[in-house]
Amino acid sequence: AGSTLAAPAIAQEQPEVTWRLTSSFPKALDTIYGGAEVLSRMVSEATDGKFNIQVYSAGEIVPGLQAADAASSGTVQACHTVSYYYVGKNPAWAVGAAVPFALNARGMNAWHYHGGGIDLFNQFLGKQGLFGLPGGNTGVQMGGWFRKEINTVNDLQGLKMRIGGFAGQVMQKLGVVPQQIAGGDIYPALEKGTIDATEWVGPYDDEKLGFQEVAPYYYYPGFWEGGPTVHFMFNKSEYENLPPHYQSLLRTACQAADANMLQQYDWLNPKAVQSLVSKGAQLRPFSQEILTASFDAANEVYSEVSAENEDFKMLWESVKDFRKQWYLWQQVSENTFDTFMMIQQRNNAL
Amino acid sequence: AGSTLAAPAIAQEQPEVTWRLTSSFPKALDTIYGGAEVLSRMVSEATDGKFNIQVYSAGEIVPGLQAADAASSGTVQACHTVSYYYVGKNPAWAVGAAVPFALNARGMNAWHYHGGGIDLFNQFLGKQGLFGLPGGNTGVQMGGWFRKEINTVNDLQGLKMRIGGFAGQVMQKLGVVPQQIAGGDIYPALEKGTIDATEWVGPYDDEKLGFQEVAPYYYYPGFWEGGPTVHFMFNKSEYENLPPHYQSLLRTACQAADANMLQQYDWLNPKAVQSLVSKGAQLRPFSQEILTASFDAANEVYSEVSAENEDFKMLWESVKDFRKQWYLWQQVSENTFDTFMMIQQRNNAL
Repeated sequence: AGSTLAAPAIAQEQPEVTWRLTSSFPKALDTIYGGAEVLSRMVSEATDGKFNIQVYSAGEIVPGLQAADAASSGTVQACHTVSYYYVGKNPAWAVGAAVPFALNARGMNAWHYHGGGIDLFNQFLGKQGLFGLPGGNTGVQMGGWFRKEINTVNDLQGLKMRIGGFAGQVMQKLGVVPQQIAGGDIYPALEKGTIDATEWVGPYDDEKLGFQEVAPYYYYPGFWEGGPTVHFMFNKSEYENLPPHYQSLLRTACQAADANMLQQYDWLNPKAVQSLVSKGAQLRPFSQEILTASFDAANEVYSEVSAENEDFKMLWESVKDFRKQWYLWQQVSENTFDTFMMIQQRNNAL
Repeated sequence: AGSTLAAPAIAQEQPEVTWRLTSSFPKALDTIYGGAEVLSRMVSEATDGKFNIQVYSAGEIVPGLQAADAASSGTVQACHTVSYYYVGKNPAWAVGAAVPFALNARGMNAWHYHGGGIDLFNQFLGKQGLFGLPGGNTGVQMGGWFRKEINTVNDLQGLKMRIGGFAGQVMQKLGVVPQQIAGGDIYPALEKGTIDATEWVGPYDDEKLGFQEVAPYYYYPGFWEGGPTVHFMFNKSEYENLPPHYQSLLRTACQAADANMLQQYDWLNPKAVQSLVSKGAQLRPFSQEILTASFDAANEVYSEVSAENEDFKMLWESVKDFRKQWYLWQQVSENTFDTFMMIQQRNNAL
């Protein structure tokens, strides 16, 4: 009798819950794929193994770009993905992750956690049966790898570049011909000249693919992803059916895993960029002409999309209001400190 | 019989633990004081109230600057503090938080979480019976409030400034006369001219004290705190006696609460700086002459202290090695993106 009485009491306290999480990323991208493993470890350890999130890499259950659909439909309870993968359904998806010339990583975090971004984005995600929380950030990405130098907007005419979604739409206005190619096929396409350029992530991830051997010009910054937010998304009913203490733990662990990814990239990228340069990567900043033309093209896209899409408009206006304040403050704060420190670095004084 | 059998099983799973945490901060500093309340809420919610951390503000149990001592001696199990408050004991304490011209907030986080900083700093804290984890960051602070404009190093001669610890030592080399004054006494001292200047935190916290009325020149950046890490510190034995799942939960919640403080400051400071300007604050960047002389003075202090203090040297060399790589990478990544965005801000194009 003791055990039958004891069992429900224990079960109420720490019920056994097993979830499947499908990642949009392959295991080879250990930092970004690893973000879901970090979440899983945190949740499992804190519950002595009772709340168990099993992580599957892209393709094990569904293809990487169908991760959100799988969580929405209940095929899995959770996914780890980037919301801009789903702009084909509705451009509003992109705003929760990154759109061109928006916020850097700290700005995105401020907006998500304290500027109402999480709630606003969940007003949208809720309609798809999802509940989402920030689940990582890469910091500003690199502009990608180019076979030839590009200096002017004219150099972009007819340029075949692997670049997707919203960023592709913006670049198309400048004459770029966006290409959709899976990660593993990029290197041979660049080698053969089937494409002229590709964007990927940043130094640590890019180094594994060896692009410097076939497209050595490595441009920066990736202005279409100033600080992209990766997301954990949960099937809304499954999340709501969790006991409140598991919900709370999940939110805490998401916030910790979110921060951890950026912390890890910030440790790994400084070494990787130096290593890439030693292997032949030629670092090049995008010219002001190209940046300015791209900024104008992005603003055109925002006007067009806002005119016809209420979800997009609501989210974008919220980001845009904060963007103005954020970059004013950046001039007074981080930028003056960082600039002084960068001058010392260039003078070999650090 | 059922209940007596059930009780121990439940007790093992989620034992009731009540800790007292003493904060170095008054409740009026809601963002930084609030960091401990965030931690407490996360831990309590995730354990259904079983692991309970009671937060006390500065002075309720011990004065703010004795928080680490209280955790070390076991008067309390935990504290929330900034390690540079304890430089009087040993300058090595400062390196885990902030020393002049070191890393910005993202750099500090990269070093702590993935560059071995947490372990290295705990080698030092362990000797004081403490285990510490990052527990917040303000971002780069402001350089503070001055009654008169200062343009040259000569303007610093004999300047009575409220500035403590390591930063005070550096400024002293340039002729500043550091003053130690409690928060509540600063305003009248500035008003009467007993002191000429004060540093505090950043716009959101500074605005509450109204310094712009008595010392309107608001200088930036606070180069002695490029990204100061606030710490949660635990009595080492108390931490080690926790069941492993509570230890893990505490680590996860600390990482989340740590990130959350910076996210909150980053949301609040942009609005506050605009509000301060509307109330009469005169924003001024420190001149390159003052920055360069301060940088040289800081390097002198580092050489002097490293020569006689092994703990300091071990920690500082680790930060310094990463600093060089970090600011090289910043030039390629955040700085180019942010600079372009700040130009658009100045052009009223955002």
